[in-house]
Amino acid sequence: MTARPDPAVLDRLRLVMGPAGVLDSPADTAPFRTSFGGIFRGEAALVLRPASTQEVAEVVRLCAEGRIPIVPQGGNTGLAGGAQPDGSGASVILSVDRMRKVRAVDVVNDTLTVEAGVTLAEVQAVAERVDRLFPLTLASEGSCRIGGNLATNAGGTQVLRYGNMRALALGLEVVLPDGRIWDGLRGLRKDNAGYDLKQLFIGSEGTLGIITAAVLRLFPRPRATATTFAAIPDPAAAIAFLGLAKARLGDSLSAFELMRAPSLAHAVAAVPGLASPFAEAYPWYLLVEASAQEAGEGLGSALEGLLAQGLEEGLVLDAVIAASGAQRRNLWALREAQAEAQAHAGKGVKHDISVPVSAIPAFVARADAALLARFPGILPFTFGHVGDGNLHYNPVMPADWTDEMRPARAGEINRIVHDVVADLGGSISAEHGLGQLRVAEAEHYKSAVELDLMRAVKAALDPHGLMNPGKVLRAR
Amino acid sequence: MTARPDPAVLDRLRLVMGPAGVLDSPADTAPFRTSFGGIFRGEAALVLRPASTQEVAEVVRLCAEGRIPIVPQGGNTGLAGGAQPDGSGASVILSVDRMRKVRAVDVVNDTLTVEAGVTLAEVQAVAERVDRLFPLTLASEGSCRIGGNLATNAGGTQVLRYGNMRALALGLEVVLPDGRIWDGLRGLRKDNAGYDLKQLFIGSEGTLGIITAAVLRLFPRPRATATTFAAIPDPAAAIAFLGLAKARLGDSLSAFELMRAPSLAHAVAAVPGLASPFAEAYPWYLLVEASAQEAGEGLGSALEGLLAQGLEEGLVLDAVIAASGAQRRNLWALREAQAEAQAHAGKGVKHDISVPVSAIPAFVARADAALLARFPGILPFTFGHVGDGNLHYNPVMPADWTDEMRPARAGEINRIVHDVVADLGGSISAEHGLGQLRVAEAEHYKSAVELDLMRAVKAALDPHGLMNPGKVLRAR
Repeated sequence: MTARPDPAVLDRLRLVMGPAGVLDSPADTAPFRTSFGGIFRGEAALVLRPASTQEVAEVVRLCAEGRIPIVPQGGNTGLAGGAQPDGSGASVILSVDRMRKVRAVDVVNDTLTVEAGVTLAEVQAVAERVDRLFPLTLASEGSCRIGGNLATNAGGTQVLRYGNMRALALGLEVVLPDGRIWDGLRGLRKDNAGYDLKQLFIGSEGTLGIITAAVLRLFPRPRATATTFAAIPDPAAAIAFLGLAKARLGDSLSAFELMRAPSLAHAVAAVPGLASPFAEAYPWYLLVEASAQEAGEGLGSALEGLLAQGLEEGLVLDAVIAASGAQRRNLWALREAQAEAQAHAGKGVKHDISVPVSAIPAFVARADAALLARFPGILPFTFGHVGDGNLHYNPVMPADWTDEMRPARAGEINRIVHDVVADLGGSISAEHGLGQLRVAEAEHYKSAVELDLMRAVKAALDPHGLMNPGKVLRAR
Repeated sequence: MTARPDPAVLDRLRLVMGPAGVLDSPADTAPFRTSFGGIFRGEAALVLRPASTQEVAEVVRLCAEGRIPIVPQGGNTGLAGGAQPDGSGASVILSVDRMRKVRAVDVVNDTLTVEAGVTLAEVQAVAERVDRLFPLTLASEGSCRIGGNLATNAGGTQVLRYGNMRALALGLEVVLPDGRIWDGLRGLRKDNAGYDLKQLFIGSEGTLGIITAAVLRLFPRPRATATTFAAIPDPAAAIAFLGLAKARLGDSLSAFELMRAPSLAHAVAAVPGLASPFAEAYPWYLLVEASAQEAGEGLGSALEGLLAQGLEEGLVLDAVIAASGAQRRNLWALREAQAEAQAHAGKGVKHDISVPVSAIPAFVARADAALLARFPGILPFTFGHVGDGNLHYNPVMPADWTDEMRPARAGEINRIVHDVVADLGGSISAEHGLGQLRVAEAEHYKSAVELDLMRAVKAALDPHGLMNPGKVLRAR
């Protein structure tokens, strides 16, 4: 698999794709070979950019015949290196970035059929134009592609109410590893006629086939939104307050995000124009949002009642409610600035963990204690989608560590954090996927039975191991 | 596979299970060999009733060694013969009906961990005791088991708001075809660490393994409900009114059920105490329900506003709103009596179809026309979950047909109805599964690529074809 591809097959690929569909020179292919942020880099014999499902099928068929591994790529915004080839140059990259058609809009069925290269922001915009909501919301929504969102089962800030990407797709079109096209583009809310094959491809990070199009669910567009930013004493208060919020707001509850004191201060320091809504500093913060169809007073008074109860029970120390769209955007900006905040705080080691919601306080307490016992001075930078049990727990190195110390110790830091996750029944990748970053770590924690099942599925669909090799699973 | 099982292996099974776990005589095994309603009957060498996951694993391991096919069974309430063996007597039935433990209740995580033999009604009751909702609602909820609900990806009347069973399960424990136990009992709302293996087993009707336990999602218990029964002119009005209801009620909309004139009259005639809410007869009816957390006036007035708009736009001809819990139950009783209503109308041929919601009017018009052209006098009895695009379209035979004519013509009737379904991009089994009833029909409509994919999955997980053979897929 690490042999250079047969030049005759590469020539054939160039021929069938034409100049518009092939990138060849190292300079042209560099943006595709290098991940967002530059962490993952690889080599590729070619970058292929088919403009249609038929072209994808043709490329995959030729690569299958020539036994050339394919690394599928969407918007190249992944954080786990799932879209970068290895360094051997044996693979080609297949980017879906030219597959940009909106194939159908059915407002009565509340569905949208789009090709894999349509960006998430474009999908959101098409939905808005027909007075509907496509709820997936991510930091990279301007450049990530629906194909990548599906391949990684993307999450984000609206999962609490609308679910992960898996819950937002009704049908798929997929080019299989042998180049055949599976047309599963059904727009059905109920279909029990056989195995639900689309589930295989969603979240499999391009290791079982290439998603070329999808039927996506649309939702009624909420007319009213109520947003609060609350100071709280600790993660236990966050979880207790979440319980109150669910009981009072039900399905209206659409976001429940956690931040930690230093991360808020760093956000304010890092991003011009940001300000904390509080004069005082508090240990933890929540951003809570509810939305509903009616534009009446109901939602606002429900949120006020919730905060009053939270204050009375000591779960909330202070809170502001957004009184305008501008104020709401300012509160969200504090949450959205967490990545910049972390860069401002220092270099860190990132984690994307989930545990049962009930185990969040234990996770933070135990991970903090274990890390600080081993590495005094480490700063447990923490934020995330706590309503889903998902935290980005990204310890920042002490200032006195040299640049070499962080990578040298990253593995040990991962192990400390992930041991706590595993002990609490959690996941070492809640929403980013395994990519190449966490494959070995997943092997460490998963049972032999589970790894065998995953390998059986992989071997059944991709017997020659040509689809995104080394991602999700390593060859045995 | 049709050879009689090795008596030595059967003796070994009797031994490891003990008398409480084995049924042997034809009289004792009859209720397990015969489907709900008596339509499907089979033979079984033994009925095995393990009381624990370890016992299931032991049974499956012994059967794998002896190459004895296993037919898994939950509450035996399925409508497609998925839990009945063939007539060869080569198989054993493995019933999970003794696996009745509620293993864990986590109200903070909003999850319940139950064994496969717990009935749906028990799960609903456990949820209610901790002030939560488990939303799955089915006619057979008193006797169907969670294992069967998962294996068939059960639907019902609350799918519009809460999704199918697939959306209600976070984790599974499964005994694989070789007798190993896969522990995927995770209570996580986000987990992208590898393939989402539970999706393989949900909806696969016991053909890939035996689900022994599950982590189920709980929801806040709605405090307020608003219910209306409306007369409408036609299916097009139903779909237009659904659009209004979604826009006005959003996620609060929890049921949107369709009935046809003759079916309502037959329900009233068949079930003592039932009455139509209207003095006049109308061609079609809707039962629409919304529910929310707040007990205030909001929901009722939203429903009134919706009905006023529906009346104004000519979508609604008449309507009643339930003014009490008793009135609400009476309206639901009209919907729940549809099975009895059909029996009262005459013998029918059942279908469980789905199409895109936007295609419902075309489906009814085209299926009615095609059937009546071929079989004048046939009565297109119709009801179902129209909000999900799912109809039970069950034409009732003309009174002059003999008892032999219905089965003789059932295949042709299926083909007429399912051709319309296929042409509209629909499914021939929306919520009942394929079982043995619709396997050949599914083969007829599915593409070669899709059948190959299904067979590849089956072969990967169950290489000897011992799990529920002949269901979902036929051996090639």
